[in-house]
Amino acid sequence: MKKAVFFEDLFVGQPIRSESVEVSQEAMIRFARENDPQFFHVDPEAAKDFLFGGLVASGWQTGALTLKLLLEDSGMRFMGGVVGVEAHLAWKHPVRPGDRLHVEGEITKLRPSRSQPDRGLVTFQARTINQAGKAVQTIQATMLVFRDPKRRDGGGAS
Amino acid sequence: MKKAVFFEDLFVGQPIRSESVEVSQEAMIRFARENDPQFFHVDPEAAKDFLFGGLVASGWQTGALTLKLLLEDSGMRFMGGVVGVEAHLAWKHPVRPGDRLHVEGEITKLRPSRSQPDRGLVTFQARTINQAGKAVQTIQATMLVFRDPKRRDGGGAS
Repeated sequence: MKKAVFFEDLFVGQPIRSESVEVSQEAMIRFARENDPQFFHVDPEAAKDFLFGGLVASGWQTGALTLKLLLEDSGMRFMGGVVGVEAHLAWKHPVRPGDRLHVEGEITKLRPSRSQPDRGLVTFQARTINQAGKAVQTIQATMLVFRDPKRRDGGGAS
Repeated sequence: MKKAVFFEDLFVGQPIRSESVEVSQEAMIRFARENDPQFFHVDPEAAKDFLFGGLVASGWQTGALTLKLLLEDSGMRFMGGVVGVEAHLAWKHPVRPGDRLHVEGEITKLRPSRSQPDRGLVTFQARTINQAGKAVQTIQATMLVFRDPKRRDGGGAS
């Protein structure tokens, strides 16, 4: 597992790449039953006659999984936690049972907070990619991350 | 429950307003354990020392819940299902255990598909609002919805 990082460890243009994970039909149905119970997310038989010709994952599951992959092991495992500020998601291609997904992208913007010297904002863009190399989702997101009290300039007691 | 609708039943400027639902601590932890296991989403004790002073919901849970509320009972219960195309989310305020949320917004754009006469795209913007009247999240999203085969122009067999 990669080392946990602070805001100071990031740079604009930094590539991010996660490990991959398989999404099982069982996990897709479990997620959707509680959070997005449309028939093509929860019923494999009924889903055969819908747009995608079979069960597909909820886009919310793909979004959450994308961040989980990034935060676990991509150079974006943030010390002290990370808080979502905003995100733009586009769902490009269905996620089907047994698909194996990973995330690739880069950091596009870094901004230390002026009013709160213990934190900064990081913006990244990334694609969530299946085993066939196809992007199933794109995301651009901004998150609040913590600064290293030992490295930040001007903050803290002085 | 409001009547299920087709693309043809919508108009630009149409107000949307959902019922409300309470988000329990148990549901927040259950969601986060599987989908967003940061400590301030899963551990009420540890969360006390974090930014928000207590447990808060994953933003992915708020996003999914927003759409679930809209699709259940807001004038946006779509005949035949609805598929997310893209969404911009901003998380404005924490969602805490026991918060009661509802969604208010309006339809901002409607576009029938030219290449596929059975469907159209609807764009809306909405705020997810807690029991204190505070917006916890804003969303602007575009979704694919189905057209009424009886009412659409030019499509289908002729």
